[in-house]
Amino acid sequence: MRIAVLSPISWRTPPHHYGPWESVVSLLTEQLVYMGLDVTLFATGDSETSGKLIAVSPRPYSEDHSVDPKVAECLHISELFERAAEFDLIHNHYDFLPLTYSALVETPVLTTIHGFSSPAIMPVYKKYNHRSHYVAISEADKSPELDYIATVHHGIDVAQFPFCKNDGEYLLFFGRIHPDKGVREAIQVAQRVGIKLVIAGIIQDQDYFAAQVEPHIDGTKVEYLGSVGPDQRADVLGHALALLHLISFDEPFGLSMVESMACGTPVIAFARGSIPEIIRDNETGYIVEDIEGAIDAVAAVRTIDRSICRTDVEKRFTSTRMAHDYVRVYKKILNLGEGDDQ
Amino acid sequence: MRIAVLSPISWRTPPHHYGPWESVVSLLTEQLVYMGLDVTLFATGDSETSGKLIAVSPRPYSEDHSVDPKVAECLHISELFERAAEFDLIHNHYDFLPLTYSALVETPVLTTIHGFSSPAIMPVYKKYNHRSHYVAISEADKSPELDYIATVHHGIDVAQFPFCKNDGEYLLFFGRIHPDKGVREAIQVAQRVGIKLVIAGIIQDQDYFAAQVEPHIDGTKVEYLGSVGPDQRADVLGHALALLHLISFDEPFGLSMVESMACGTPVIAFARGSIPEIIRDNETGYIVEDIEGAIDAVAAVRTIDRSICRTDVEKRFTSTRMAHDYVRVYKKILNLGEGDDQ
Repeated sequence: MRIAVLSPISWRTPPHHYGPWESVVSLLTEQLVYMGLDVTLFATGDSETSGKLIAVSPRPYSEDHSVDPKVAECLHISELFERAAEFDLIHNHYDFLPLTYSALVETPVLTTIHGFSSPAIMPVYKKYNHRSHYVAISEADKSPELDYIATVHHGIDVAQFPFCKNDGEYLLFFGRIHPDKGVREAIQVAQRVGIKLVIAGIIQDQDYFAAQVEPHIDGTKVEYLGSVGPDQRADVLGHALALLHLISFDEPFGLSMVESMACGTPVIAFARGSIPEIIRDNETGYIVEDIEGAIDAVAAVRTIDRSICRTDVEKRFTSTRMAHDYVRVYKKILNLGEGDDQ
Repeated sequence: MRIAVLSPISWRTPPHHYGPWESVVSLLTEQLVYMGLDVTLFATGDSETSGKLIAVSPRPYSEDHSVDPKVAECLHISELFERAAEFDLIHNHYDFLPLTYSALVETPVLTTIHGFSSPAIMPVYKKYNHRSHYVAISEADKSPELDYIATVHHGIDVAQFPFCKNDGEYLLFFGRIHPDKGVREAIQVAQRVGIKLVIAGIIQDQDYFAAQVEPHIDGTKVEYLGSVGPDQRADVLGHALALLHLISFDEPFGLSMVESMACGTPVIAFARGSIPEIIRDNETGYIVEDIEGAIDAVAAVRTIDRSICRTDVEKRFTSTRMAHDYVRVYKKILNLGEGDDQ
């Protein structure tokens, strides 16, 4: 099965630090190659893959500001579609723009919708609803206006997230510094329970950081690590008592929750978006309604068996499981049986 | 000959006020229909044409801010390419993005390059240089890195610009209020020669307007009319003594100069970009080097025979001539002889 995988070019695939879409694309690509599929990854030139790499943009536009994003993306996308006949299936992770090329080629196109950035993009998804195939990344992120061939939860490489048996000493915020993500709420909870909060992530909203986060950073009660790359990630996640994920938006999926649980660290989260699909309440964390609920959850969190967090990820959220789910979708689109040759 | 014409959707085709690309597209489309070609215009839903209109975006994104430009443009462009088989030729006026769809269809694509907004877009034009066809709008605007099938100067509908025999009383600035266009320079010249300056055009650079233009507006020595629509345009142009076009960029083409000359009003311009292709020095205006040169030109401008300005436009810059030039290009691309049936 010859699969073209279209990755974003905002960051490298896999990303050095931040870049959740590129991260999922890399995990999937590597697993598909491991399973014996013939995979060609369309990504930035500095990307790394054990499959074939085709790159139009040498560098990611979020790192190299000499790259014009609009020019780079249309050359990146069209390069794949001009070579469509070389592939049995195109797996698009580049949001809506590639759909507008999809009706011009014979090769079927599968799009993983990594979340809707705005209602403004819906007309494109609606136009191609019956000419293309969509995968949702969670049940919660499904639009009632679209049809989906499957829901495929993201998976991680658990080998990169070793299990830490013992309860950690600090609460952790891990993600973009943005009001959506609830950094302020995490600080409130940490202050109320009197436990240190460690914050890790890129600053996406500088005003929010300056007003709501920075004044609390003292290095002892609230510590900010900046963006934490793959090398340190497991260490920071594994040695936490709990991950605070007090989001104020309907998150399509939350990779950091899965990574945290893989290390054994339970998650305390607000019941928004995909949260109930990821956390098993009272087993791998707590799904709470408000700040008071989060405070009660911190008091109870040591009763969670950290090994259950780990085994739940091993069962439900590995990149192996994700890749097998996608191969099942590919076969469905190509009308191949489960046992058909890859 | 079945021609699909792809117009921008920033403004209506033709525009209510500003919108030079949409204006040229409309003039060309109407003339092609008049010549008997089967023309389908892809433009905003409020556009007007005597050909067929296909619209995805009901309203222009520069007028209706509920329209997401990126979403609207990819749906607009892909609609045409998905219907490519219905046409013998696609004539693209939408800059570089449509080129990235062009290799996916059989129908030949001709692109009129209405100027290069930035060097960043060159990689797209270079990639499709040998798979597509380009028209330059002036010799001056040609890139040495590209091949062109022809240069086609814009043309206007001279009937919309009646000839005014007598010298006007004021100097005129007509165009976008932007440093490139030389509004400040026009004010300087008017002040030095002691003749009233009338300014007409949309404000594109608000800071420049506030700092360099607004302080001089007194309604008597310097008057600002705002944006002047098609109804008033000929009146404002025709009753001027001269058009001051003291630009500080290499303008690809300057429609306002042609419109001014059609009304009989000569043009005083700096020797940048396409200017020497449009103005005949000492006959239809003056091509000058600096402010002093412009001042001398104003002193001499009454010696210009206004009827020569008119006849030069009738000979060289009508939409009829433009349409015939384009039909010649269409036939060349389609390997049709001059006498072949349309």
